[in-house]
Order: sequence, then structure tokens, then C-alpha cells
Amino acid sequence: MLILDGVSDRPINGKTPLSEAYTPNLDKLAELGINGIMDTIAPGIRPGSDTAHLALLGYDPFKFYCGRGPIEAAGAGIEVKTGDVAFRVNFATVKGEGSIFEKIVIDRRAGRINDTDELVKAINEEVKIDSDFIFKRGSGHRGALVLRGENLSDKVTDTDPKKIGGRVKKCIALEKGAERTAEIVNDFMQKSHEVLERHPFNIKREREGLLKANALLLRGVGKLFSLPKFEERYGMSLAVISGTILIKGVGRIVGGELIEDSRITGGKDTDLNAKVDLALKALKSYDFVLLHIKACDEYGHDGDFDGKRKFIEKIDKALERILSLDFSEICVVISADHTTPVSVRDHTADPVPLSIVFDQVRKDDVKRYSEFDAYKGGLCRIRGIDLMNIILDLIDKAKKYGA
Amino acid sequence: MLILDGVSDRPINGKTPLSEAYTPNLDKLAELGINGIMDTIAPGIRPGSDTAHLALLGYDPFKFYCGRGPIEAAGAGIEVKTGDVAFRVNFATVKGEGSIFEKIVIDRRAGRINDTDELVKAINEEVKIDSDFIFKRGSGHRGALVLRGENLSDKVTDTDPKKIGGRVKKCIALEKGAERTAEIVNDFMQKSHEVLERHPFNIKREREGLLKANALLLRGVGKLFSLPKFEERYGMSLAVISGTILIKGVGRIVGGELIEDSRITGGKDTDLNAKVDLALKALKSYDFVLLHIKACDEYGHDGDFDGKRKFIEKIDKALERILSLDFSEICVVISADHTTPVSVRDHTADPVPLSIVFDQVRKDDVKRYSEFDAYKGGLCRIRGIDLMNIILDLIDKAKKYGA
Repeated sequence: MLILDGVSDRPINGKTPLSEAYTPNLDKLAELGINGIMDTIAPGIRPGSDTAHLALLGYDPFKFYCGRGPIEAAGAGIEVKTGDVAFRVNFATVKGEGSIFEKIVIDRRAGRINDTDELVKAINEEVKIDSDFIFKRGSGHRGALVLRGENLSDKVTDTDPKKIGGRVKKCIALEKGAERTAEIVNDFMQKSHEVLERHPFNIKREREGLLKANALLLRGVGKLFSLPKFEERYGMSLAVISGTILIKGVGRIVGGELIEDSRITGGKDTDLNAKVDLALKALKSYDFVLLHIKACDEYGHDGDFDGKRKFIEKIDKALERILSLDFSEICVVISADHTTPVSVRDHTADPVPLSIVFDQVRKDDVKRYSEFDAYKGGLCRIRGIDLMNIILDLIDKAKKYGA
Repeated sequence: MLILDGVSDRPINGKTPLSEAYTPNLDKLAELGINGIMDTIAPGIRPGSDTAHLALLGYDPFKFYCGRGPIEAAGAGIEVKTGDVAFRVNFATVKGEGSIFEKIVIDRRAGRINDTDELVKAINEEVKIDSDFIFKRGSGHRGALVLRGENLSDKVTDTDPKKIGGRVKKCIALEKGAERTAEIVNDFMQKSHEVLERHPFNIKREREGLLKANALLLRGVGKLFSLPKFEERYGMSLAVISGTILIKGVGRIVGGELIEDSRITGGKDTDLNAKVDLALKALKSYDFVLLHIKACDEYGHDGDFDGKRKFIEKIDKALERILSLDFSEICVVISADHTTPVSVRDHTADPVPLSIVFDQVRKDDVKRYSEFDAYKGGLCRIRGIDLMNIILDLIDKAKKYGA
């Protein structure tokens, strides 16, 4: 399953980056397969990449989505467990007197700090609160915090004011029973601030004229609940190849194995050939391989039509070897998690093109992989949540309902 | 409503029995009508013929499917009532010492016995258990058992080991409250075995070197719950024409009347002209006629491409007279309950082609009744559960929701 994050678009003068791109390999795959359009969540619902990927893997996001915190924490490498409450974290710079909640955020990224290892270590060693916790860094100024213990609640507010000049927010309980979690979070906020404020690494940064990374801002709270594992559910092992923490996180919470490689960046500079190599190799030892390619989405967010078109052409070149797969043995699915129009610079709910290439499918007349062709195909219009069932049926792993 | 059981397929070298068949009449109907593809249950969900027919008649199988036992019992002619617990039954041959549960199944079909009338009579007369019961024969070695009484449960296991050489299984309660039903079933197992073992008909069979039909194996347990009757629901009388016990059963549990005729076999040898005759006649006295034709499914299960194609051509010939119906008065629906690919030899979830012929429909450009044309039609892709509502709307029997 190849997911081209945000590859589809809305037309500008009748053209999209995908329709304008020269994509002989994607087109050949569309020609070999059955095509359609897909609402990854539901018609008109703008998908996040996380909710969309849950749906694409057959997990109803309305039932299984637990918020971004646990997914990012899992993607950052924390073994998130059922009942854990997790936050996304930013290292930030605050100024002022008094407690952390009296201080003002002057930089939400602490001068785009990148070397947080020492600070992370200090927090894990020195902060003592009324709960076990795991704090791990992500890329750059980012990190993830997991609280672990009995009766934790995710019905609490963020502490990130989400704007420069805002005061650090107190965590507030949103329902009865969440008060203790809010207290733990506030305690963590204050104690981590104290550890960071006086840390030699920050003192040194200050001396060098850099912003101190003296506060942790928490957002995206969520509580992981029990998810049936992909392999138990479908009888297939799952490998996930992605450079994006969020997608790695989805892969991990459903029990998939991550295939990691330093050449995979999750960005515009990722090594697409390496990714395809890893996917082709993974197909030999895993039953199901999810290959996620991110950067079309970034070009969409940037509003960069031509950049997006060119990146699609790069992807297309890297996909040439996919055409030599034995489609009597391997079912290839090509789609996206959502549309990211360069005109909107954000995700939209426009359905995504979908091609399924497998000897057993009813080939249709579609000969191009694009927004303007896919809807004419034999799949018509489906929902993301139905895709796994359709695949299971095609590969003969479906059970009959009734007699 | 004409249901061609399992008529659709997956392509072999780009061709299916339906796409290869010469079907001028089906094609004409497609041309006259509006077309589409249909997931009778849901995309990717492999339908049984029973669950699919429930959906096609507007009964959500996830809500109304009660297991195969009650449906087969109804199809075999038993007046199954709400609360009845029913099983499918095989006459079988067992050997060994001790109680029925110590014996080994040596033939699950008792040498494909066909003349079970005397044995059925003896069981109904001589077996006394702590519940009313009705035991009726089906075709060949088959039968149906209905238990009737207060507080019976279908949360019990089968007694059929489903393999030769297996010991007859004790019926086990799967939840609290089902123990009494399990006891009744086990008592029936033992007592029916005793009656059969000593029955003169079986003694005679043994003397003739035939296998004794000395045990009844039970499977497919289900409990019939209250279903709204078709006529109450839609204000239309329903006639069902089918040679297949399972479909007759669906027709009966929704309150339809069966039109029976010895020329209808439910097999490859059925008299298709007689079926169409009966349907055309039934249209004069019933509001809604379900005409079910089985054998395409059988050819699919047999993996017989050419047999399936030829049978489709036979159906097509028999349908010629359908073209002379007055489509301003009569709405004709042509579809299937599921796909039965000759390559898979079982039901799959590939959507089925659907044509609705009626003066009021929006005719589309489809001119062939096939898997490769239907999806291009004006109905796009719908679900089975929506079909009855679409029909009710077309024939002006739908109510407005809202003002």
C-alpha cells in the first residue's frame, strides 16, 4: 500500500500538479488496475494524516482515534501502553517572574533548538511527580511526554498557549475525575521548568546569546485505548516505511513494525529510491507493507504547484520497479491519505484517486493516475474504512458473512 | 426482482462468463434501464446468499440475520416462529460402543441416503424430550430441526464434528441460561440415535450393504427473532420463486409466499422457461415477485467458466418475454446476491451488476449487462440495503422524510 501524502489537488485553470506531471509509471499502474476515488474518512470530512491512515488500515477513526499525543509518542519511539496519557511537547523559551504559569512565551521553539539530549536526560532524571512518566525528544525542538499510571485522564487542557506573548497555560480538568491528572501535569510543568532554567546547558546557551530552552509546552493530549493489533485482526504481518513521526506512530499503535533508515527523512530531501528498495525488500518478509511518501503534502502546504508536480515526477521515476512485481502474487494499492491543494495550503476533503493493481481485479478503462480519471473507474467512490475489506476479499483472506 | 445467484465474476484474461456470454435480452434490459454496481452487504464483505437476500429485500442482515438454521427450517417448510431454535441436520452414519457421544462419524451423509421419510416419521413419533420439536426432511440426507418452547437459547454449540473420523460432539452451552437447551439437544441426539439404530429401515439397509442412517448431526444453530413482515413494511404482497431451500427460507421468514412447482429444481437442470412463466403469472396477483435463479453460482463453485457462460445464455433466452412487460407499470430489477468467481470457487465481495428497468428511471449510456459496463451507469455504486428504498421511491411508495 503506497500512500502519497496529499498528492491530489484542486484544479487551477483546470490543472493540478498530478494531472500536469509526467507519470508514465503511475499511469501504467492505473491502466493495469481498477480505479476509483476514495473519501478516506467520509465525504466532506477533512482528514488528518493520522485519522486517514487509521482508516486506510481498517481502523475506524471515529472509534479508534485517540488524539495526536499518543500517536506522536509512539512514533517517537515510546512504547505507549493502553491507559497512557500522552502529549506532544515543544521546548520553548519563557520569561518573567514567579511560577511557570506566570511567565510569557517568547519563542515556542526555543530558537529552533536541535540538541536537546542533555536537557531530556535531566528531565527524566530529576523531575519527580506523582506518576511515572516517559519523556523523549523528537526532531528539533519537539518531544513527546507519556504519563503512566492508574486512572489518568485525557480530559484535560493543553498548557501550550500556541502564540508568542501568551502566558503558559495551567492544565485544567475538563471533567470530574480528571483533577488529579491536571495536578500532575501542572506539577510536571513547574518542575521541568525549574530543571531546565538552571541547567548548565541552558546557562551556556544564554551566555552564547541563544534562547534558553527553559519550558516544555504540552498539547495534543490523548489517552491510548486498546486497539486490536493488525496481525491479529487480519492474519498478516505489517511493516511501515515512513519518515514521518505521525505515520510511524499510527503504524506502531496498530502493532506494525517500523523499517527505519537514515536515508528516509519524511521531507522533500528523502531518498525515494531507498524507500522503494526497502519496500520491495520488506515484501519478502512481511505480508503487508505500508509505504508512505510525505513531501507532496508539504508542497501543498507551501502552495508550491510546480514543486509538487516535480516531486510527483520524482516519485513516478522511483516507482518504475513496482511495475515488475508479480501481480498474481502481490496486490499493489496506490492512493493518498487526503488532498492538499496548493490553493488551500491545507488538507481538504476532496476524494483521493485510488488504484488497485492485482490479477484478480476487474480492470477498467482508466489509463491515467489523476483526479480527472480515477472517478471513471470500476471502484466508483468508496470510503477509506472499506479499503482493507476490499483488499482482504481480493487476496482471499475474507470470511463469508452468512451461508 | 430477478436475482441471478453468483452471476458475476472476476476476469480471467480480461474475460468473465457474463462478459463473454451472448445476452441480447439482458443487454437490452440494461440499455432500457439505469445501471450500477452494488455491494449487497458492504464493500469487501463476502455475502452469503441468505444475508444478501435479506439485504436485497430491505432487511439489514447485521440486524436481522438469525443464522442459517431457522432459514433452512423455514425453507424446508416448517412454520418457524419467533423464539424457535433451529438447526440444519444431516443424516449420518456412526460406529462404536456406548452413547452417541462416544461414537465416530464414518459418513456425514449416510451413504447419500435419499429416502428418509420413514426415519423422519419414527423420530417425530418416538423421540420424547423436554421440549416440543419439529423435525423435517430436506433433500437427500438433509433435514431441519426446530425446538420450540420457553427460554430456549441459540448460544449452544453444534454436534456435527464436520469431519469423517470425528466423534459426535456434545452440545455445550456458550452462556449462562443456555444449559437447558444444551441438555435438550443432547437428549435429542441420544434418543434419535436409539430410534434410528434399531429402526427396521436401517436394519434392512445394513443387510443390503448400505450405510445405516443412524445419527443426526446438528449445525447452523440460530434463533428466529421477530421480523417485520414484508407486506406490513412495504404495503406490497411478496411472492418468491426459487428452487433453493435457503432462499425459500428467507422468503418465508419475511412473510412471503412461495410459488412451488416441480419443474423448479434450484439446480442446473431447472426449467427456466417455467420459472419465467410462473413469475409473469405471479405479477398478476402479487405486488412484488422475487425470481431467484441459482445455477450460475453452482458453476462458479465448480470453477466451470464455460458452463457458467452457457447457463447465462440459457437464462438470457428465457428472459426474452420480460422485454414485453409494460415498464410504465412494472419495475424490473436485475442483479445478483454476490459474485461467485470461477477462479475462487466461492462467494466474493466484488460488487454485482444492477439494472433497474422502469419508465421513470434516468436511462444511462450502459448497453451491456456485465461487470465491465455496469459501473459506468447512473446508479454508480450502491449498497444492497438501499435497493428496496430506491425501488419504493421509483414506484411512488416512498414517504417523505421531513417537510
